[in-house]
Amino acid sequence: MDVIDDLVANNRDFAASLPAGHLDVRPSRRLAIVTCMDSRLDVFAALGLRDGEAHVLRNAGGVITDDVIRSLAVSQRRLGTRAVMLIHHNDCGMEALTDDGFRAELQQATGVAPAFAIESFSDLDADVRQSILRVRRSAFLLHRDLVRGFVYDVDTHHLREISVDAED
Amino acid sequence: MDVIDDLVANNRDFAASLPAGHLDVRPSRRLAIVTCMDSRLDVFAALGLRDGEAHVLRNAGGVITDDVIRSLAVSQRRLGTRAVMLIHHNDCGMEALTDDGFRAELQQATGVAPAFAIESFSDLDADVRQSILRVRRSAFLLHRDLVRGFVYDVDTHHLREISVDAED
Repeated sequence: MDVIDDLVANNRDFAASLPAGHLDVRPSRRLAIVTCMDSRLDVFAALGLRDGEAHVLRNAGGVITDDVIRSLAVSQRRLGTRAVMLIHHNDCGMEALTDDGFRAELQQATGVAPAFAIESFSDLDADVRQSILRVRRSAFLLHRDLVRGFVYDVDTHHLREISVDAED
Repeated sequence: MDVIDDLVANNRDFAASLPAGHLDVRPSRRLAIVTCMDSRLDVFAALGLRDGEAHVLRNAGGVITDDVIRSLAVSQRRLGTRAVMLIHHNDCGMEALTDDGFRAELQQATGVAPAFAIESFSDLDADVRQSILRVRRSAFLLHRDLVRGFVYDVDTHHLREISVDAED
């Protein structure tokens, strides 16, 4: 069976096992979580999150890009969230490449260099701090005071908080 | 207790309940899922997904932006995924705004108009088709043939597939 057909069949069982019911579009915990697309991080399970509680944003690396700022602006200005929780993780695919290398690879394959940064990184904790600062310094966001950053260990499933120097 | 402290405490219980163990960084189902940040969609539960199986990308609307193309390019070219599953949903916050309106709101609040599209939409099924086409037509992706689009009903938890005309 095709992999997508397989998940559609799983969804049929899931939907049949639950009562229908409506939850508000505005997250009840007034929280947005930004994390990596990594397949080993089940955000709802790992944080004990339930339906309707928090927005979950995910991309390669869990970095704060324009698309994340766009999403957080909508989340805060229209859907009532306040706090931002950033989660990076160890053994990340983004540590195994460089912007120069991957841009060259894309240009060689397509003839065109991408107009966007790849957002590779080599220092995990520093990249979390960088993401915290990008949130704190984006004028498009309503709330920039309640932002905290973490590293998730994909082997032990533990979160570790990353502190940012007070002067930032 | 602070909302983030609350989730960190949940994570402590979660990590303690599981054995440590390593899974490969490359998703075993060779699949990337792109969906909305909406708080009512627990992707792992709704699709019967397990750790290590698929990349999960999420933003406001579940639309294909440059950041999603960046992430899918890394996912396919470095981490071995092939298929792309797109999931939008009903009662989406992005249907309640317009690009013009939200751009004006940001400009009024900050003095600066954003350099990115807001990606609002009014026709849900058409927006899924638009996202399918953006994947199919991005030269940066290695695999563009196995892409399917769905709408998730946040009340009944059911997926509905969106067909794309053969000529696209």
